[in-house]
Amino acid sequence: MSKHILVIGAGLSSTYLIEYLKKNAAEHDWQITIADSNYQLALSKAGDGERMHATTIQTENAEELNSIIAAHDIVISLLPPALHVTVAKVCLQQKKHLITASYVSEEMQKLHTDALKNNLLFLNECGLDPGIDHLSAMKMIDNIHRNGGVVNTFKSYCGGLVAPEYDNNPWHYKFTWNPRNVVLAGQATARYLEEGELKFIGPSRIFTQTENIEIKGSGSYESYANRDSLGYIGPYGIKHAGTVLRGTLRKKGFCNQWNMLAKIGLTDDTFIIPDSEKITYRQLLSALIPGTGMPQLEKRVCAFLGITPDSSDYHSIAWLGLFTEERAGISNATPAKILQYLLERKWALEPNDLDMIVMYHYLAYTLRGEKHQVSSSLVVKGESQSLTAMAKTVGLPLGIASKLVLENRVKSRGVQIPLQPEYYLPTLDELETFGIRFEEHHS
Amino acid sequence: MSKHILVIGAGLSSTYLIEYLKKNAAEHDWQITIADSNYQLALSKAGDGERMHATTIQTENAEELNSIIAAHDIVISLLPPALHVTVAKVCLQQKKHLITASYVSEEMQKLHTDALKNNLLFLNECGLDPGIDHLSAMKMIDNIHRNGGVVNTFKSYCGGLVAPEYDNNPWHYKFTWNPRNVVLAGQATARYLEEGELKFIGPSRIFTQTENIEIKGSGSYESYANRDSLGYIGPYGIKHAGTVLRGTLRKKGFCNQWNMLAKIGLTDDTFIIPDSEKITYRQLLSALIPGTGMPQLEKRVCAFLGITPDSSDYHSIAWLGLFTEERAGISNATPAKILQYLLERKWALEPNDLDMIVMYHYLAYTLRGEKHQVSSSLVVKGESQSLTAMAKTVGLPLGIASKLVLENRVKSRGVQIPLQPEYYLPTLDELETFGIRFEEHHS
Repeated sequence: MSKHILVIGAGLSSTYLIEYLKKNAAEHDWQITIADSNYQLALSKAGDGERMHATTIQTENAEELNSIIAAHDIVISLLPPALHVTVAKVCLQQKKHLITASYVSEEMQKLHTDALKNNLLFLNECGLDPGIDHLSAMKMIDNIHRNGGVVNTFKSYCGGLVAPEYDNNPWHYKFTWNPRNVVLAGQATARYLEEGELKFIGPSRIFTQTENIEIKGSGSYESYANRDSLGYIGPYGIKHAGTVLRGTLRKKGFCNQWNMLAKIGLTDDTFIIPDSEKITYRQLLSALIPGTGMPQLEKRVCAFLGITPDSSDYHSIAWLGLFTEERAGISNATPAKILQYLLERKWALEPNDLDMIVMYHYLAYTLRGEKHQVSSSLVVKGESQSLTAMAKTVGLPLGIASKLVLENRVKSRGVQIPLQPEYYLPTLDELETFGIRFEEHHS
Repeated sequence: MSKHILVIGAGLSSTYLIEYLKKNAAEHDWQITIADSNYQLALSKAGDGERMHATTIQTENAEELNSIIAAHDIVISLLPPALHVTVAKVCLQQKKHLITASYVSEEMQKLHTDALKNNLLFLNECGLDPGIDHLSAMKMIDNIHRNGGVVNTFKSYCGGLVAPEYDNNPWHYKFTWNPRNVVLAGQATARYLEEGELKFIGPSRIFTQTENIEIKGSGSYESYANRDSLGYIGPYGIKHAGTVLRGTLRKKGFCNQWNMLAKIGLTDDTFIIPDSEKITYRQLLSALIPGTGMPQLEKRVCAFLGITPDSSDYHSIAWLGLFTEERAGISNATPAKILQYLLERKWALEPNDLDMIVMYHYLAYTLRGEKHQVSSSLVVKGESQSLTAMAKTVGLPLGIASKLVLENRVKSRGVQIPLQPEYYLPTLDELETFGIRFEEHHS
């Protein structure tokens, strides 16, 4: 009997997932429906295969959502995170499994008991980060534990970057994911564990307390600490680890330059600039730099940041156009919103640019009284502007998870994240067939 | 015929106000009711004068609030700012005037038309800051305008401090007002005007971009910028001023030391410390300072702040007890909450300590082509622990405003703040009889 898969949300990140489902449809006798509020988009993503269907969907229309979900066996939600719970509640009513690539929200967690009672699986965090990070980390951790070892250090890093061949700006960065999240990164205090001590890094220091990461065959990166690393200790079962840190990867030099923007106040999202639609980048910069005098702005910036006009730091700021008389022209804007608008133009992927995903884990452990280290790295480059590395590494784990669930190879039920061997072993194996392969180094 | 005055809220700041009303009661034939949720407190504040009455009041009990307000001619609300609107709505129903010492909230402003229609005055910002600052600034500004001058620079500063005779700690500061507001000061971006340019100072720089203020006969102070100085340009009628700044006064040296606490992350109110009830001050400090190693904490603090163990900065931090193994013992606490708990003990006014209010205005103006400057300063010391300078400078303007309204000497109606001569002339005159006198210096 045919199995019916519903994909809700046909945006950029759906491309690879839909390709995967389409390729597997005949072998597994799947019927696949692509649903989006934009019917034309759903239709174009579904394409013309006989097992592919498109429909319009309005998540605020409960009746419509109910009747569409009722006609399927499993739902993959690519909606914005806040909407997953709406879908999950309908999945409960209609007794359907649900898969998402998003963090488990408090609201989602509350559905755990009801999902269990109904023998349903609501599998979340099944993309790249969160997703592939869980799969690969848990495989390493379980290996160490199985041999009787104890994990002393767990560090994990991930970054969405531009592929080095297309890295042609002084920031060595282009947007491959939500620009707003990038601009507002580092505005919450980072919490982690270091050598047995709790560590907090406040927003003013996140981009200064960075770590250098060398990845064999890929190059030099640096990382800044993510908001909450402490929450992983329990789920990963590494309560004896003295160091637990998760970070975000950038090319070397980025964090120092970004820290300049933060120090200036350009990432400030807490107040609205008066008459912001009229302000030029130069005026905004001058308002944020101590002192007055527009003609002296370049000198004031150098004095404030302690840099010289011939430095690469100065060049990076100038390259963004912050000294120009142009306007973002956005009303009721914060400095961060104006910066985002500017960066979206400066850091846009050009038509032929390809993106790149880099993930890196480092574990130190004790086995039979001896200290060991193991690192694991993953580098994935995009294939084209629609088949990006980001879409691939988010979409494939979702597709593979759907297959595992439909084939009944996953026993867990309730609200889950993919930490068990039943997920990570087959998923990591199949990801390798797509070139998503971790390189391990032992020492 | 007797006039009936209702004072809602009998906390610390009510003492002087109630004294004032009591002293004036016979001459003006007033009956005065002190209302508080704590009846004993209301009773003790009302005292035993025959014109003094006490009652219990629950602001959440609409019927009770209505019937009490109905029996009075004017209401003075000393409630927490968020509750003024509840009282104001009942004043509308019962057609009574209202006076507060708080900033006009958006909710309060919405009542303007209704108050006007009912010929009622809802007079806000009638304490010290806001309050006396408006009165004294507007008198100076109106004087300049009346002579045909143009205000080019307007700067205004205020601080609640400990009187110098009782200043015996290395911070030269004790709490004379809400400790939470002091701990969280400077966490919003400051906005002001400097030499015709808009200026923004982000939280990480508020305590470093300070200004020295010398007040003749009082000493050396420094100031940090308040959140929003731009909002005063319109109400004060100084649209030709290129520099408009309001700031908070501290004794010299405070801001640099406070900046150390902020830089460390101790003023961070954005995240809850795990198991915060168990953390010692030393552990918290270590978690916030880069690096690890509790025994090296003193060295790490010095390295991080760029100070030496024999410096006064180091002494100030150590004096607070931040290196000790003591616990605040507060669950679900942020670093700021733990710091506040510590400071409430360290910076408490001792039983015989007196407080001090310092206010300072500086105006530069052009008159018939010539540049002039005028400054005006006010220093008020407390009389006793209950008759504090803060209670005096907040309470007296409220009391005087009530008298002016009851004597029908104030014509304005609607939601107002005291910017007009009908307020500031008689109020400043009467304040002088209480020793609240500004010293002007012209040059």
